[in-house]
Amino acid sequence: MQRNPDSSSDCAFLDDAVTDGRVAHTESVREQYATDESPHAGRTPDAVVWPASADEVAAVLAEANDRDIPVTPRSGGSGLEGNAIPSAGGIVLSTAEIEHVEVSPADLQATVGAGVVYDDLNDKLASNGLRFAPGISSGEVATIGGMVATNASGFNAVRYGETRDHVRRLEVVTADGRIVECGRDVVKTSAGYSLKDLFVGSEGTLGVVTEVTLGLVGIPEYRRAALVTFPSRAAASRAVADAIGSALVPGAIEFIDTTAMKMLNAYHDDVSFEERPTLIIELHANNAGIEEDLEFAKAICEDHGMLSWEAAAEENLGDIWQARRDKYPATQSYREGWEVALVGDVVVPISRYPEIVEEVSQASEELDLLTSCVGHAGDGNLHFTSLVDPEDEEMVARANELNERVVRKAIALGGSATGEHGVGIGKRKFMDEEHGPAIDLMRSIKDTFDPNGILNPGKVLPELPTDER
Amino acid sequence: MQRNPDSSSDCAFLDDAVTDGRVAHTESVREQYATDESPHAGRTPDAVVWPASADEVAAVLAEANDRDIPVTPRSGGSGLEGNAIPSAGGIVLSTAEIEHVEVSPADLQATVGAGVVYDDLNDKLASNGLRFAPGISSGEVATIGGMVATNASGFNAVRYGETRDHVRRLEVVTADGRIVECGRDVVKTSAGYSLKDLFVGSEGTLGVVTEVTLGLVGIPEYRRAALVTFPSRAAASRAVADAIGSALVPGAIEFIDTTAMKMLNAYHDDVSFEERPTLIIELHANNAGIEEDLEFAKAICEDHGMLSWEAAAEENLGDIWQARRDKYPATQSYREGWEVALVGDVVVPISRYPEIVEEVSQASEELDLLTSCVGHAGDGNLHFTSLVDPEDEEMVARANELNERVVRKAIALGGSATGEHGVGIGKRKFMDEEHGPAIDLMRSIKDTFDPNGILNPGKVLPELPTDER
Repeated sequence: MQRNPDSSSDCAFLDDAVTDGRVAHTESVREQYATDESPHAGRTPDAVVWPASADEVAAVLAEANDRDIPVTPRSGGSGLEGNAIPSAGGIVLSTAEIEHVEVSPADLQATVGAGVVYDDLNDKLASNGLRFAPGISSGEVATIGGMVATNASGFNAVRYGETRDHVRRLEVVTADGRIVECGRDVVKTSAGYSLKDLFVGSEGTLGVVTEVTLGLVGIPEYRRAALVTFPSRAAASRAVADAIGSALVPGAIEFIDTTAMKMLNAYHDDVSFEERPTLIIELHANNAGIEEDLEFAKAICEDHGMLSWEAAAEENLGDIWQARRDKYPATQSYREGWEVALVGDVVVPISRYPEIVEEVSQASEELDLLTSCVGHAGDGNLHFTSLVDPEDEEMVARANELNERVVRKAIALGGSATGEHGVGIGKRKFMDEEHGPAIDLMRSIKDTFDPNGILNPGKVLPELPTDER
Repeated sequence: MQRNPDSSSDCAFLDDAVTDGRVAHTESVREQYATDESPHAGRTPDAVVWPASADEVAAVLAEANDRDIPVTPRSGGSGLEGNAIPSAGGIVLSTAEIEHVEVSPADLQATVGAGVVYDDLNDKLASNGLRFAPGISSGEVATIGGMVATNASGFNAVRYGETRDHVRRLEVVTADGRIVECGRDVVKTSAGYSLKDLFVGSEGTLGVVTEVTLGLVGIPEYRRAALVTFPSRAAASRAVADAIGSALVPGAIEFIDTTAMKMLNAYHDDVSFEERPTLIIELHANNAGIEEDLEFAKAICEDHGMLSWEAAAEENLGDIWQARRDKYPATQSYREGWEVALVGDVVVPISRYPEIVEEVSQASEELDLLTSCVGHAGDGNLHFTSLVDPEDEEMVARANELNERVVRKAIALGGSATGEHGVGIGKRKFMDEEHGPAIDLMRSIKDTFDPNGILNPGKVLPELPTDER
């Protein structure tokens, strides 16, 4: 069923579904929820609602489902693939008001409302010596609900895993307003179908996650890091593949190409990195054996012709990572008036990492673009951004072509179109190529869970061929 | 739809569906596939078939689906909950002939046919210094397909996770004979619904897994272990909870109660363990920092009043674990003519581990049973077995009552009815209690994926209330 793209819905019922007037019908507010951090075209929703509990979410969904009104769940809005854009209008349902946190240190777990911000959660957990570990770049705004929705991860996934790996239990509200618990507060179970894993990464298209029980890890007693430079991106990326293939388990291992290093230097007055292909290697441990691992990592880098190895003092670790986290604003501000076309996000088997890095470089040269790369290299995850003059449509088109070419190469290498940003709008067109016949099974689940198609329409699953609509 | 429980099917079509005559129609062979390792009542299937490829599995399923003939997938047959019993007759589909292995050391992964035996796989991987890590007791017979089906795990899950945590990609054949790839050969991805996670743990009720890409871990360079005894099971189980809550990540941490230690001593001529509540604590590391961790573990045990700490030499580690793995035969042979009623398998939040251990003990005393406990304690996973005179129906009933009582207690403590053996037949009756309304979502998936209900009928999902059948 295709909805008229320009229709608007009568959302007056929302005023009864939630308390304390947490509904916006005015255009000025609604407009703020038309877009997310992605370059995808926005659409102003007909209303925005902030339920404060699973019961209120259920009330909203049950009524919206009866009325056939689209509902786009929204978390921090920091998604980079249009995941939270209300493409079909209707209601934006923000989970920002669901922000309870209950920590159970003895079980290394926390039960967390979907609206809790990642950094805020980790600030709370620090007093228990604990941490929710994926290590994302957008931790100041991204919420736990959004991380579950996209199966987010980042710097530290190489050691600790994706969001999925930490989710023990979800509270989810279905399209028709039922509240269900998926999973249990245990570290393992074999009791039936893992619904929690189905909802993780489904980007609000199968249900709205309202609460999560997360497994936590201890904050490591020892952290060591080094900035390592190489003569070529090939050498740097081969060093990563070799380190992982040698069963080293780093806390993080980050690749930054020469262009990205230039951008970081230009953005920060107080840093002056060598402008060469660079790795940040960070190790975590609870004992002094970490020094031995650091030597091992260094020996691998030497094998690949490293040019410099700069060990960071523990008190400087934060600065290094902050510089890396500033990659996005550094790119945005590098050439006045130009903008990031989009943030590429692919993942490949680690042995193919050198090839995907090379593909970006070649494509960038052939398409005459200024493209920088960073990546959670230990996972085989690469991000790439081309800077474009937004007025120059032809240049923007070339940047999109680069993205398509790199994504298709990643899939051809056995990899995936998205390592951690999700499908949203931007990656839908690659899903048939990546999943093949499995897409039909995904569609059947969507149809079963959301027969009226109200939940986040226009996301994740590819468009049906015209004759099947 | 309920099938006539005594009907039999015409399975002549199987002779065309697979090559080399890998079909059995004779009663003597069929009878061998009536049961598994569980005490649940068996049923002789109408035929047994051994397809050698996904294509052959697809041919069998497509035809069986057209004919409405039940198909029960079978792996090693070592399941303890009746998972592989062909309860509705029809066809037993063994994946034993699908046994290819391709190792990609650089990617720390292996692509493995469903019929590959766990120990055989790890023997192959050892030459690359790699391992598929869950560490199950039944590794000599259990196959990778079966482990995926039940999301199996064991001794080493506390450090490395369940089978689920290692599955990157599955090849699955659907009920109607489509071959689908679920997931990619990468360590992380955010590309849509995680179908692989839906199939993991579904016990062949949603599709038949034919091939698996598994993530591997490096064999640790250092292993240290200690046998630690305590004055009480409460002290031992509190030590486990404290160790895990302190963010120690052991390679294994195993609880063995006094009765179990007596059984092990009686079974082995050459060992003489102290007959007290005992932990086996094993640590894994790639550097000498392991000694520091071992001291930390020892200090925790001292805090809980340990009576003895016997560090094992590395060359004796195998013996300790072999003794532990012999727990099942040791129990079987402990009292002549008596048998294990069933093998209990529950999991609770680690902070509640002392309570579930106590519950088994109390229930055993009140029901006048001889019950022993072992458990992968670091996961909150407990196994318990009551020995019964199989001729004494009333005693068998008491053992079943103990199991029910302990499972209900585990669920009440926030835990799960099964930590690693799966639901099969035996745990179906607890699924409503554990999952609540989520069961309806599971049923909707089953109906969507297997509308004719041919795949492993009578397993995993609880029986429908009489008025809804």
